[in-house]
This record gives sequence, structure tokens and C-alpha cells, in this order.
Amino acid sequence: MTKWRVYLSGEIHTDWREQIEAGTTAAGLPVEFSAPVTDHGSSDDCGVAILGAEENAFWKDRKGAGVNAIRTRTLMEQADIVIVRFGEQYKQWNAAFDAGFAAALGKPLIIMHGPGHAHALKEVDAAALAVAETPEQIVAVLRYVITGDLQPVAAAHAAE
Amino acid sequence: MTKWRVYLSGEIHTDWREQIEAGTTAAGLPVEFSAPVTDHGSSDDCGVAILGAEENAFWKDRKGAGVNAIRTRTLMEQADIVIVRFGEQYKQWNAAFDAGFAAALGKPLIIMHGPGHAHALKEVDAAALAVAETPEQIVAVLRYVITGDLQPVAAAHAAE
Amino acid sequence: MTKWRVYLSGEIHTDWREQIEAGTTAAGLPVEFSAPVTDHGSSDDCGVAILGAEENAFWKDRKGAGVNAIRTRTLMEQADIVIVRFGEQYKQWNAAFDAGFAAALGKPLIIMHGPGHAHALKEVDAAALAVAETPEQIVAVLRYVITGDLQPVAAAHAAE
Amino acid sequence: MTKWRVYLSGEIHTDWREQIEAGTTAAGLPVEFSAPVTDHGSSDDCGVAILGAEENAFWKDRKGAGVNAIRTRTLMEQADIVIVRFGEQYKQWNAAFDAGFAAALGKPLIIMHGPGHAHALKEVDAAALAVAETPEQIVAVLRYVITGDLQPVAAAHAAE
Amino acid sequence: MTKWRVYLSGEIHTDWREQIEAGTTAAGLPVEFSAPVTDHGSSDDCGVAILGAEENAFWKDRKGAGVNAIRTRTLMEQADIVIVRFGEQYKQWNAAFDAGFAAALGKPLIIMHGPGHAHALKEVDAAALAVAETPEQIVAVLRYVITGDLQPVAAAHAAE
Amino acid sequence: MTKWRVYLSGEIHTDWREQIEAGTTAAGLPVEFSAPVTDHGSSDDCGVAILGAEENAFWKDRKGAGVNAIRTRTLMEQADIVIVRFGEQYKQWNAAFDAGFAAALGKPLIIMHGPGHAHALKEVDAAALAVAETPEQIVAVLRYVITGDLQPVAAAHAAE
Amino acid sequence: MTKWRVYLSGEIHTDWREQIEAGTTAAGLPVEFSAPVTDHGSSDDCGVAILGAEENAFWKDRKGAGVNAIRTRTLMEQADIVIVRFGEQYKQWNAAFDAGFAAALGKPLIIMHGPGHAHALKEVDAAALAVAETPEQIVAVLRYVITGDLQPVAAAHAAE
Amino acid sequence: MTKWRVYLSGEIHTDWREQIEAGTTAAGLPVEFSAPVTDHGSSDDCGVAILGAEENAFWKDRKGAGVNAIRTRTLMEQADIVIVRFGEQYKQWNAAFDAGFAAALGKPLIIMHGPGHAHALKEVDAAALAVAETPEQIVAVLRYVITGDLQPVAAAHAAE
Repeated sequence: MTKWRVYLSGEIHTDWREQIEAGTTAAGLPVEFSAPVTDHGSSDDCGVAILGAEENAFWKDRKGAGVNAIRTRTLMEQADIVIVRFGEQYKQWNAAFDAGFAAALGKPLIIMHGPGHAHALKEVDAAALAVAETPEQIVAVLRYVITGDLQPVAAAHAAE
Repeated sequence: MTKWRVYLSGEIHTDWREQIEAGTTAAGLPVEFSAPVTDHGSSDDCGVAILGAEENAFWKDRKGAGVNAIRTRTLMEQADIVIVRFGEQYKQWNAAFDAGFAAALGKPLIIMHGPGHAHALKEVDAAALAVAETPEQIVAVLRYVITGDLQPVAAAHAAE
Repeated sequence: MTKWRVYLSGEIHTDWREQIEAGTTAAGLPVEFSAPVTDHGSSDDCGVAILGAEENAFWKDRKGAGVNAIRTRTLMEQADIVIVRFGEQYKQWNAAFDAGFAAALGKPLIIMHGPGHAHALKEVDAAALAVAETPEQIVAVLRYVITGDLQPVAAAHAAE
Repeated sequence: MTKWRVYLSGEIHTDWREQIEAGTTAAGLPVEFSAPVTDHGSSDDCGVAILGAEENAFWKDRKGAGVNAIRTRTLMEQADIVIVRFGEQYKQWNAAFDAGFAAALGKPLIIMHGPGHAHALKEVDAAALAVAETPEQIVAVLRYVITGDLQPVAAAHAAE
Repeated sequence: MTKWRVYLSGEIHTDWREQIEAGTTAAGLPVEFSAPVTDHGSSDDCGVAILGAEENAFWKDRKGAGVNAIRTRTLMEQADIVIVRFGEQYKQWNAAFDAGFAAALGKPLIIMHGPGHAHALKEVDAAALAVAETPEQIVAVLRYVITGDLQPVAAAHAAE
Repeated sequence: MTKWRVYLSGEIHTDWREQIEAGTTAAGLPVEFSAPVTDHGSSDDCGVAILGAEENAFWKDRKGAGVNAIRTRTLMEQADIVIVRFGEQYKQWNAAFDAGFAAALGKPLIIMHGPGHAHALKEVDAAALAVAETPEQIVAVLRYVITGDLQPVAAAHAAE
Repeated sequence: MTKWRVYLSGEIHTDWREQIEAGTTAAGLPVEFSAPVTDHGSSDDCGVAILGAEENAFWKDRKGAGVNAIRTRTLMEQADIVIVRFGEQYKQWNAAFDAGFAAALGKPLIIMHGPGHAHALKEVDAAALAVAETPEQIVAVLRYVITGDLQPVAAAHAAE
Repeated sequence: MTKWRVYLSGEIHTDWREQIEAGTTAAGLPVEFSAPVTDHGSSDDCGVAILGAEENAFWKDRKGAGVNAIRTRTLMEQADIVIVRFGEQYKQWNAAFDAGFAAALGKPLIIMHGPGHAHALKEVDAAALAVAETPEQIVAVLRYVITGDLQPVAAAHAAE
């Protein structure tokens, strides 16, 4: 069976990716996940560690962002579905950037965030085909989308 | 041999998809079919069952349409050929929407409907490379297109 | 000031286009409207009247649909905004086809229909950036979108 | 002389747009600026005010985001240059979304923010052709890009 | 009123372009026509006359074809409608090449030829939105498409 | 090793396709060839044999051309390289149409014809990356392009 | 008459742009030329002069290249024709980069260089629709392409 | 595991490709490399050796460049990542052309050159997501991008 390629963008401080992957594995879904490098230190340092040190923090960041983009743009363009998670903390502007990038590419977009961010994310949510709150919901969406098997999820808000 | 990916859009109340699949299997054609979720109840409820209940029917529909679109747009964009069937009943606006969507993507389009709908579907038919009435004709088109083997179909109108 | 090009697709049996045009003219908005040929007889006969008679109604329709498509596709592709109106009667599959075509082109899409069609049009509505019921609402959307001037519309449902 | 179309996305609580417009007018540059609706209240309420009230805040936001997107996507796609300003406060996820959207469209992108946001915006900055801090710098970039006349800007950091 | 840009490709040995232009002028249609260079000698010699002589006829032709393509591709890509005329004589492979090129660009295509070429041009005709035989029909199509005014053309075949 | 997909368009009355396939097989090249249906009778009759008879030859041709296009456009769009052969006889407008279609898609194009057609095909040749006369040359081009192994071909003109 | 937009890329140390502009003005051709900033010092310094100093020459260059790209990419994408001149000196890698960029965008490309560079530029020349040596030839190409008026140019090589 | 396709463009006189391939093999990375034909003689002669001799060196080069482009454009368009190496000698305009071509296609681009070329390549470097000096760095970038494993490279400049 053809694999569905799903790119998991956004928040890197909780285990939401692992939960989704465990759920889809348990459900036997043919999904191949990809993601940015989620080790914060590596992501910050990759540019200077490989391509040479920089005194100026701005250019250290630029080098790292370039190297990371080689990975993220390739994987996002290859993805069938792009899922972007906004966590409770931090600016997470790269998550919103990825959502805009995926939207302009015409990728089916799923946004995942807690109810407290709904108003701040209204433009982002409006570009998505689904807005979820929990990994359980994401797994249920993937199950339904890929197999047609609808398994209801109880009380999403309470699960948050 | 490379598989041809064929997306079967439209009417969900008769077994036309099964007839086409049985015919292509019998003919040994390398085709991989895809389709929207054809269980009417699941298709209507998927949004609220997974992403949370809605009091307003309009937004219940919106949630479901979004979730279904994750599946249908992905499969339609991956398809080599898009086939859209208009049945005898209902508005079937999503079938016509899919035909327009596929046409704008430049997908080879086959429309399938009974003779009574010909005038109402004239713009849709004009965007298609073939207009058929029966699953038998669809199978014959796929056989010819994929293998070059031309097997005439007798009396299409009578078969309706 | 740059003109906004707005294509008005769909229903041809009421004066909704004229109402919208009158409203935008009264509001002084820089809009250039376009539309399919809305004279039903001309639209049906244009193919055979110009390119030669056909005995078979199917090919008469095909010829006409081709000629009309020269107009409609050109205008739709040039449009900044596509508005599709579904009336109370008829199949209106070409309206849904146009909506799908515009959606695949990435055009900002506004759908206009009465509340009774909401469930049947749920996939079409989900592809739109706005769903309206009255010409007054369309004019208010255009006024806001073009000038930023927000003028509330009272009691849309009641106005139907 | 041909006008350059410049879209000004992002922060709406300071007068940075007015400063840029004043500067380009003073310099006699052929620029036509566009922007989202910057009246916060109108931007939040436009959906329900025109298209009908919603009890649920999530759908109120969705309606408004849709209507605003009719404006913003049209103007962004028509723009020659997209400038995105990140202010000192708020999440501003729609600004980052716009930056990603413009990047995927291949628009020349200029990002404007204070030095304190440099690390958080590193992926966004890396997608830009210029990163500026002040309206004065933006005007100087536009002057140079459009006319070739290079007028140095003194002490950008100090100007912050 | 916005001008429609119409590219007239193909046969250069009869006055069909002049007839179409005279007809649209008489009808007051807002059309801007473009065409390849129709002076046969100039078209053949332009490469070597400007860019230097060639001993080998193959490369003389190549140089000329390149220079002519600067004109024809630019005008064809700018055109709203592409009309390709096949005359009674010659191979006219560049006409068929232009038709294929325009079809792949998604341009609304009108093919014009006498009834004797119908079978040989069946693939080309099938890619077109209209197939005409006379300049009078082309003018009538343009009149209808641009203004909605349907003026029947009598006895196309007899007019050939 | 990845297969190269090569589409062989054009002349159907000689065995040039078989010669090329035999040569690439002998050379052990990883090529997957595709082509239109080359049985002339099937190609002419496929439309009416499957989709129903037509009294008018024009529409019989239209139906057949539509069905054939389902095959040819799909295969041409999937191809890495498009090769178009012009034989000594017939109009072969569909070959030239395919060349134009492939050129607009940006496909690497190889044109194959005898020296007598060089002037008539100058625009088509100018859109190609190689112009060959014999199947032996085509095989040598494919060998070089795929493996880097250059095996000279003696006296192409004499071989014609 | 519609203006043709022509982008003049490449060498900045001779007056070839002025010669071409003078020639087209004398010929009364409707051409609007654009070009990169050709003041070498401004082009090198624009980044740091406007956006802040850099200690590291590499990042000074990066800033300048970004700012220049805002101009050059916008103008190149708007151009109908791109002309790239290679002079006798320097690496001129940005000229070759522009040629590749324009080729991938499908822009009609004219390359201009002296005969000594022919072998080194063979891949670049092969992507062009014309290869010229003198401004006089460029003017003659533009005259022919825009007006159809063929005025031979004498002895190009001797003119070098 | 999915293979990453990496195209190695540019300099052909040192063994940088072999070093990168050896490094990625040693690291067990799933990469499939492709490249132009790097045998200088074959690359120069392929056109005339296969397609027939030319007296004029310019057309000999043109034929060869065409044949080589069949390979290089196909492989570059299929690549996930394009790496372009500029060596210490020669004009290498085709390397810069490839970089521009890849940039316009939106391919993630890595440029590799010694520090002496930094200023001359500033526009090319600015279009890249990474600028490296050594094959060791390239291998480290690929390792990080594909696996997320960051292995620092010591003293890049010293290694030159």
C-alpha cells in the first residue's frame, strides 16, 4: 500500500510527535513521518559546527537556519500532509512560517494547538483543513483519511 | 509494470466503483483506484466525531468537509486519471466541484452519467476527454488506454 | 486606483448580478465585473449558430460549451475574486464546476446561496473564504476587502 | 514610470507604515503600498458583522479570517515586494504566516524587527533578502532598489 | 474597456488575418491582435541577416527559428486566446507545434481549417475549444465571447 | 538503477520504435519506453467502438482523439525525455502538436527526421536539444545521456 | 503600443546598455529597459550602507547581494526578454547565474559576447534563442522581433 | 529508507565528487548522487560524434551542449538538493548557469568554493542555503540534513 508522507512541524519541547507515531503504528497505518531536527542544541549550532564559527550571533543563526532549511523545505515539499503544532510557550514563529509556506504550496494543512491560542491563530487555522487539540485526534484524522475508518474521539477539550 | 492511479469521484449510492474495479481486475490491468470515503454517515460525521461537537449544522458540515478534503485533494492530485460519476439523484455539487478542480489541475478527466443529464452537464462534459455511460465502457477505456487493446462495447445506450 | 476584477459565476435567472453591481457603484468601489453570457438562449445556441448546425443534441451542447468556455475561462483566470451563486432551482453543475476550477487556481472564492442548500454545498462552501446569502452581503464584503470600511449588514437570514 | 507594488504585512500598533509611506513620498518613489486592514476592531468583527453572528468565538474568528484573507492574499500575490514587520509585543503568528506564504510564492521578502527578536526569527530572516530595523532603512532599500540611488543610513541600532 | 489579446498563428499565404482584423474592427471589438512575422523571406533570413551568415542551411534555419521564437513565444504567452489556421498547402508543422505549445500553456485555442483537413487534424481539433472554417466565424466567435452578442453565421461549409 | 522514461511520439508506419528498443536492450540501458497506440485502426476507432457510434466523421474523430489523449498526455507528462519522429509521408500534425506540447512542459526533446524535412521542421528542431536521423543515433544519445559512455555513430547522413 | 520589457544583465564596465538604448530610441521601438544597479561601488556597498556595517567581508557581500536581488529578481521576472552580456574580463558569475535563472523561468534569452568566449559559454549559448556580438545586432533583433522589420547587420565579426 | 537525490554540478578537474561519495558511503547515508558527464573529451565531442560532424566550432559546441543538457536538466530537475562546486581555475560559467537554473526551480542549493572566490560569487552564494569549502563539510551537511546527527567539522579554512 502506498505510504502517506506526513510532515510534523512546530513545537519541539513535548512528545506530541512520538504520541502520534505510536498511535499510527498501533493502528497499522501506512504513514511515513518526517520532521525538522528536534534536538534544540543541534538545530541552533549546525551552521557554525559544520561550516565554520561566527562571532556575530545573527550570522550564526543565519548559517544554522540555512542548513536546517535544506532539510525542512525538502521534506515539506515531499509531504502529502503538513501538520503544525503550536505549544503553550515561546514565539514559535518558524511554526507559523511553515504553515504559511505549506498553505502557499497547496498542501493539506492540519493545525494543532490548545484552546487558549485560538484567537491568536485565527488566520493560521483558517488556512487549515482541520484544527485539532490532541495527538489522539490527529491519529483519528489520519486513520479516517487514509482508511475511511471513523473512530470517534471523546471529549477533546477535556483531554487537553 | 507501473500502476495507473485512477480517482473515482462522485455518486456513492450505487456500486459503479465495484463494477469498474471488478472489470479491471478481470482484465488484469495495473490500476490502483482511490475514492472519497463512500460511507455517507462517516462522511457527514467525521468532523465532529473526531474534532469535537458543533451545535450549528453549518459548522458541523464545515468540519466534516475539511477532513474529507484532506483525503480527496491528496488522492486527486496524485491521480493520473480522474473519473467523475453523476447519478440519477441528488444535487451532487461536490462531484461537479471535483470535476472543475481536476480540470484546472490538467488531469485527464472522464465523466460518466446517463443520457438524461447530458444537457445539464454540457460544460462539465466539454472539459472531459471521454464521456461514458456504463462501468463497462470505463473498463474498456482503461484497457485501451493502458494496454492499447481495443475491445468494443456493444450498445451503450441500451445497457443503461 | 487599481480596479479589482470580480467574476460572477452561476445562477442566471435572478438579478443578483445587477444588485451587486448597483451596490458597488453606489459605494463607489473600483470593481470591474465579468460574467458568463447570461442570455440562456444565446448560451445554448452559440456553438451551432456560429460554427454550423448539429443533428445530435450532445454535439450541439459540446460546441456551445466550448465557445462559452473561451469566455469563462479567460475571465475567471483574470479575476482577482470569483463569486459563485447557487439559486433555488436547477442542477447548476456548471456553477459547482466553476467553483472547483477557481479553487484549484487558488482564487479567493465567495459562495452565495440560501440556507436551504447549506448541507448539499458543504464541500463547495469549505473551499470558500466567505459564504454569503444576499447581494447586500457581497457588496459589504467587497467594500470591506477593497477599502477597509466595515459596514455591518443587518439580519442576513431575515433578508433572504 | 512603472509603479512598484509593496505589501506591508504585520504589526498594526505603531505607525511604521505611515513612516515608510511618508519617506517614499518625500523621496518621490513610484511605489503603491497595500496592507491588511489595520483597524483591529474591524479586522476582528468583519466576518460576523457582514455574514451573520456566531455564538462560538472560534467560528466568529474563522469568518473574519476568511474575509480578511480575500484582501490579504489578493494583495500579497499582486505585490512585487512583501515587507513583514514584527513588533515588540503579541504573538504575531499571522505575520510569520504571511512571511512563509510570500516565501513560497517566491516574492522578494524584507523582514523588519528589533534586535531582540533576531534569534526567534532566524528561520524567517533566512528566507528574506533583507532584514531591517527601522522605517528609514526600508525607505533607503526601496530608494536604492527602484532608482539605484544609494543613500546610507546612519547607526541603525542606535535608531531603534 | 480591457483589450483581449489574440494571437494568430499559422498559414501566411492568404489574407485570413486581415479579414479577421477587418471584421473585428467593423464590429468595434476591443481586440489587440498579434502574429508571427508573416513576410516569408524575412522570416527565413532574419537569423543570418542579423547574427551572421552560415554556410550550412540547417544552422541558417536554426538561427532564424531562434530569432522568430523570441517574438512568437512572447506573444503567445501574453495572449488571452490563440487561433491557429491551417491552410490548404504545405506541411505547416510550426502551426501544429504552436497549437501544442498553446494547449500545454492552457490557452483557450481556436483551430481554423477547411473540411478536408478534419481527419488529419483530429488530435489538434480535440485540444481546441472551437473549430472554425472561415474568418467570418472567427469574428462571430470573438464578438460573442467578448460582448455576449450572438450573430449567427450562415452556411459555413458553403462559404468555404 | 532508476529507469529513464522515454516517450516515443510520431510516425507509426515504420519500425523505428522497435529498432530503438532493440538497441537500448542490447546496450543494457535502464529505459522504460512508452508510446501512443500505434495500431492505426484501433487509434481511429477507439472512441466510437467504446463510447458509441457517431454518424458524423468529425465527431467520430473527436471521440477517438479524446480517448487517445488520455493515454498520450499522461505518458508524455510522466516522461523524462520526449522523442518525436517525423516520417517521409503524411501530414503528421499530431507529431508536431506533441512536440509543441512537450516543449511547453519543458521536457527535453529529441526530434528525428530525414534531411529532406529540415527546412519545414526548423521551428520544431529549434525547440529540441538534439536532432537525429536514425534509430542508431537515438540509441547512442540515450547511452551517452544515461551512462556517460560515448560511442560514435558513423556517417549518419549516409545511413539514411 | 504595448511596451516590450527587456532586462539587460551582465557586464557593467562598458557602455553596451547605452548603445542598445540609443539604437532602440533612434529606431522608435516601444521598449522599456531595466538592469541591475551598474554603479560598482553602490552595488558592493548597498547592504552595509543601509542595513548596518559588517566586520566580515563575506557577510558584507551577503547583505549587498540580498538587497541587489530585490531589484534584479523583480525586474527579471517582469521582463519579456532577458539579454545577458559577457565582457572580456572578470569571472562574471552573476551574469551566468542570471542566464540560468532566466532560462529556468522560460524567458526568451539573448546572450551577447565576443567570439573568444564561445567555447566557454557553450552551455549558456545553447539555452539562448539568439547569440549576438554587438549592440547593433541586439537592436536589429529587437527591431525585427517587435516590428517585423528586418534590417541586416553587416559583418558582425569585423565590428567586434 | 527513502533515498535523497543529490546533483553534483560544476568543476570536473579534481576528485571532489569521489570524496563526497566516499564520505557518505562511509556514513551509511541513503543518497543517490548524479552529475554531468565529467569526462572532458566526451562532453566536448558528444554532439558531433553521435549526430554528425560540424565544420564550425560554434555549432559543434551547440550540438554537444544540447546533448549534455538532456542529461543535466533531467537530473537537476529530479534532484532534491543541488550542489555546485567552483574550482580554482577556468571560467566555469556552466556551473554558475546551473546554480541560477536550480535557484529558479526552487531547489535547495549548496555552493562549494575556496575563500578566494567569495566576493566574485557573492550573488551565487546569496541564493544558496549553505556555502561550504570542503567535501568533508558537504558530507557533514548531508549527514545532519538526512539523519539529524550533527558531527562538527574542525577548522574548515585550515583544511582548504
